[in-house]
Amino acid sequence: METGTGTEARMRVHRTEETVRYCETDRMNVAHHTTYLVWFEIGRTNLLKITGRTYREMEEAGYLLPVIEFSCRMVKSVDYEDRVAIETWIGEIRSRTITFRYRIFNDADAIAEGMTKHVCVDGNNKYRRIPAFIPEKLADFMKR
Amino acid sequence: METGTGTEARMRVHRTEETVRYCETDRMNVAHHTTYLVWFEIGRTNLLKITGRTYREMEEAGYLLPVIEFSCRMVKSVDYEDRVAIETWIGEIRSRTITFRYRIFNDADAIAEGMTKHVCVDGNNKYRRIPAFIPEKLADFMKR
Amino acid sequence: METGTGTEARMRVHRTEETVRYCETDRMNVAHHTTYLVWFEIGRTNLLKITGRTYREMEEAGYLLPVIEFSCRMVKSVDYEDRVAIETWIGEIRSRTITFRYRIFNDADAIAEGMTKHVCVDGNNKYRRIPAFIPEKLADFMKR
Amino acid sequence: METGTGTEARMRVHRTEETVRYCETDRMNVAHHTTYLVWFEIGRTNLLKITGRTYREMEEAGYLLPVIEFSCRMVKSVDYEDRVAIETWIGEIRSRTITFRYRIFNDADAIAEGMTKHVCVDGNNKYRRIPAFIPEKLADFMKR
Repeated sequence: METGTGTEARMRVHRTEETVRYCETDRMNVAHHTTYLVWFEIGRTNLLKITGRTYREMEEAGYLLPVIEFSCRMVKSVDYEDRVAIETWIGEIRSRTITFRYRIFNDADAIAEGMTKHVCVDGNNKYRRIPAFIPEKLADFMKR
Repeated sequence: METGTGTEARMRVHRTEETVRYCETDRMNVAHHTTYLVWFEIGRTNLLKITGRTYREMEEAGYLLPVIEFSCRMVKSVDYEDRVAIETWIGEIRSRTITFRYRIFNDADAIAEGMTKHVCVDGNNKYRRIPAFIPEKLADFMKR
Repeated sequence: METGTGTEARMRVHRTEETVRYCETDRMNVAHHTTYLVWFEIGRTNLLKITGRTYREMEEAGYLLPVIEFSCRMVKSVDYEDRVAIETWIGEIRSRTITFRYRIFNDADAIAEGMTKHVCVDGNNKYRRIPAFIPEKLADFMKR
Repeated sequence: METGTGTEARMRVHRTEETVRYCETDRMNVAHHTTYLVWFEIGRTNLLKITGRTYREMEEAGYLLPVIEFSCRMVKSVDYEDRVAIETWIGEIRSRTITFRYRIFNDADAIAEGMTKHVCVDGNNKYRRIPAFIPEKLADFMKR
């Protein structure tokens, strides 16, 4: 698993911890691969709080960020009650799209990495510019 | 498992078939118990189509039926790729609430039975009377 | 919603907190009703840790506790990013079955209550007696 | 969305249909993006049946195919009760890995495309060669 570019490596990442739920396991005795997308979602939800608004408040203000692309590579599985740490950071922000990047850890092991790309739309599914406070606040966070 | 009262036994029930999905299994190698509620949801969705409107159309017309109570008893588990049949019928309709009853089969075996109770609300979560076409059409169906 | 018998009211309950995940919401803008079963599962998982063994360790030792019955009544919904507290306690322990009871809170409001009943089986799905340390340790906890 | 190379375009694809379940929607009134991975899983499950064995039988014979990579791009969302068709075909088979490719349709519209890559392991998570009948039977199917 690559550890990102030098630039990314110097950035500050956001870290959230979760525990594998029983219902998230499958008959292979591992967390089902859809669960990684759920962890990514929790990671970016928590990263976005750093802007001073929750993603729920953004949606209520008419800024929705539906997923238009996702990918993930996994190198090690986890099972029920295993702890995972989700590292989240911004890959890229353009006027209408934002890409989050993620790395999942179980103890010291990076077990997966992935990305999600989102487009900004309003409640009628029309494209909007991403509001300025998002890149500003996140840039502040990542530089610290 | 009881097979219902004599009255129920004479009623017509709606039948839908589903297959256990991989992601629905857990590390016990069975369909996770939340899946039974999903099957109940599919069963009543399909039963409601008999009214001539889909539940999606009802929601769009401002008649929402959130679940306010559910229960289920299971006597036998099912695993990945097992087929289940969902039998759904109306337990009771009152002015503002409706109770669906369900029985889940794997081949000839009744493996679970349960119920969900719903209250009718509008899009602002205010109580509404259940629209007359629902009990009328469902009564027609069940008598046949 | 009843607050239980006087006996239960004097018992110690286990408390766990969770946050509603985006993926747990549905098009009615509330946590889907299956999520309450997931919270119950998290609640009893954490209560069982009080015995000194995790439920994962119990399964690995050949003591599985599949759900054979569940029920829930909900009086108020929750939405994305709402915090819930899960209170879990033992309803009844018999030689081969155990019943957990739950109450879900959002802030000070009790929003749901329910139960799950489990039977103890081994890895081949044969009935086993519930190991003595479970009722002993849980009785200790609840009395305190 | 690209429609694949000329080579792929001449291949036979496997087609499965599903309906968006209520529980699969989220507060954005669309099928949550994890659902696309579930549809991919159903698609490859059904494609694998063409080999004459179900994936469940393969697992029981000690050939497990955990997901080690997945990706998806979505161009249009779907909502509750929308019908989707899942087209599945083989991207690549190597001695120990297999890549499936997918395209999701809603009516005539291709709404998403993606891939999953799997490694073959035994029940102890040791690498195995993919059994010969899988590429043979699938090659037969895709040529027809």
